[in-house]
Amino acid sequence: MSIRSYFDSFTERDWDRLDETEPVRFALVGLGWWVLEQAMPAIAESDYCETSVLVSRSAEKAADAAADHDGVEGISAEAYHAGDHADQYDAVYVCTPNATHLDYVESAAEQEKAVLCEKPMEASSDRAERLIAACDEADVFLYIAYRMHTEPAVRRAKELVDEGFIGDPVQIHGGMSGPLLELVPDENQWRLNADLAGGCSMIDIGIYPLNTARFVLDADPTAVYGVTHTLHPAFEEVDERVSFTAEFPNDVDAVCTATHNAYASSHLRILGTEGELILDPIFYPWQDREVTLRGHGVGGDISFEQANQMTEEFDYVATCIRTETEPVATGRHGLVDMRAIEAIYESAETGERVTL
Amino acid sequence: MSIRSYFDSFTERDWDRLDETEPVRFALVGLGWWVLEQAMPAIAESDYCETSVLVSRSAEKAADAAADHDGVEGISAEAYHAGDHADQYDAVYVCTPNATHLDYVESAAEQEKAVLCEKPMEASSDRAERLIAACDEADVFLYIAYRMHTEPAVRRAKELVDEGFIGDPVQIHGGMSGPLLELVPDENQWRLNADLAGGCSMIDIGIYPLNTARFVLDADPTAVYGVTHTLHPAFEEVDERVSFTAEFPNDVDAVCTATHNAYASSHLRILGTEGELILDPIFYPWQDREVTLRGHGVGGDISFEQANQMTEEFDYVATCIRTETEPVATGRHGLVDMRAIEAIYESAETGERVTL
Repeated sequence: MSIRSYFDSFTERDWDRLDETEPVRFALVGLGWWVLEQAMPAIAESDYCETSVLVSRSAEKAADAAADHDGVEGISAEAYHAGDHADQYDAVYVCTPNATHLDYVESAAEQEKAVLCEKPMEASSDRAERLIAACDEADVFLYIAYRMHTEPAVRRAKELVDEGFIGDPVQIHGGMSGPLLELVPDENQWRLNADLAGGCSMIDIGIYPLNTARFVLDADPTAVYGVTHTLHPAFEEVDERVSFTAEFPNDVDAVCTATHNAYASSHLRILGTEGELILDPIFYPWQDREVTLRGHGVGGDISFEQANQMTEEFDYVATCIRTETEPVATGRHGLVDMRAIEAIYESAETGERVTL
Repeated sequence: MSIRSYFDSFTERDWDRLDETEPVRFALVGLGWWVLEQAMPAIAESDYCETSVLVSRSAEKAADAAADHDGVEGISAEAYHAGDHADQYDAVYVCTPNATHLDYVESAAEQEKAVLCEKPMEASSDRAERLIAACDEADVFLYIAYRMHTEPAVRRAKELVDEGFIGDPVQIHGGMSGPLLELVPDENQWRLNADLAGGCSMIDIGIYPLNTARFVLDADPTAVYGVTHTLHPAFEEVDERVSFTAEFPNDVDAVCTATHNAYASSHLRILGTEGELILDPIFYPWQDREVTLRGHGVGGDISFEQANQMTEEFDYVATCIRTETEPVATGRHGLVDMRAIEAIYESAETGERVTL
């Protein structure tokens, strides 16, 4: 590949192979800011998806949210579970508090709908296993919404690693942080509730460097260690800060941090025997992603046209559904993270390395 | 301070207050590439130091190395220990295999010479304690050669942290790596010998992010965890790769990596509640250091005139000696690293967090 063609195709959808135009109609479940401000606008920009139904515990909230959008109906969670409007959607995007994913996915499976379930897939690995079982039994498509799998910068980084640009991977750094209480100014929000969320900084954003390291390495952690801290009273039930080490095959360790109570930052750094890749910023959709390449006596910062991470994800999911393609981000892929996260929390309690 | 004056003084020696010109005459002990290619040229550029004596186990090697330099005498280690040339130097720079520092420092102390001892200060904390005792008993100046303490980029980062630019420090990433066997193509070199070095990647270069985090935070670790790996046969006795977590007061964790067998890279990244500082590259004197500031709605990469790290260190040490100033990098400061490093190695054996 020439450098010219490499740069020209940086943001190209290497996975895009749909020629049909019949959109996948999505029911969006859970009308928080992520669905209303991120997912809905992203779907509106997508090639292969459309929003047809909005689902909220409150029928009124659902109706209000749908009112401004032609062809979109707002329905209650009760009506959703009953399948009253099942003919109006082909797939369900579940973006509710973690501990409620299972219920919504079970209903989607009963209705034989494809499922896009937000990460973390549930609040515990036990419930994540039940979620997988529900989809398996109904033989429905299940994708865990790791939007880094379709972020062009991450896909290019994975290609560069696969092609040996950095030699053999050696060590990884990753981190994600942000001021949650500024983004969602509510000290009683579900992300701070241990029962609803299953944890906080680790399970909600520490999962980004963990999962992206897995994706880029195409490998799963074999052992983990973690440390958690809580300072702010709003984080009383959960981990405000987490540091963790994830050991991967071939003696590659990833050392990572996450916190929902600090300056917004996100990065992934992959050191190899012959080079290095730095993605910084990388995880937040509202920060322009940048890639730095170093190796073989050269180096540079690559900037590129920014893709809408959620549009990429939705169109990729539609492509997988339509072409019956199994993605990387299956339920079993998500379950590996759930078990690693639980092991990191266990390690933080005991001060001991936990093998997986 | 105005932005203009901030940038104008970025590389200014904030510690420089010597008006005398009588140089501190150094005996340089251990004629490896670091002394001959880094330290000697740096001293030649310095304001307050000069090289007067070169010491090697081989009298011939010492004489050969000195031959090209006017006013420099090459002597054997035996002659050095006997103090035969003690009137020719005011201070001793010890840059020999780690496990031999103690012997050379003991002789310097007996001769009542100021001591600049390379990091790590010895191969074990027991020997480091004896080294401190020798200097204490003789009441001689002892400085551990952490050249990051006088690297302008690190000093400015510490000032920014002290001034609250990033708010409260939250989490730190740091790493250092390089291809040791390309830099010193000898599989029998002392850095790969457990007895002579006391370890490899952790004790030799992992110490950079560890110590620089301590310096910037002005704090010592309270607990550590470590993982080590060895793949290449040359590293059979020692740690080829290390990952470690160092917990600091106020729930600040530093997650770090080091390896002497990978692409050359070095960075330190300090996340705070209100901003972030990234120093990358930072630790290698032959890579131009860069600083990235982010916070308060602004951000940018700062490049600056590169200082010779070793010249800064030598002139700072001369300033401390002449003004009888106690530096941060005392023997006791170095001992904290030795104990942390031993705890990291212990943790890597047991898989358990070690409190300090």
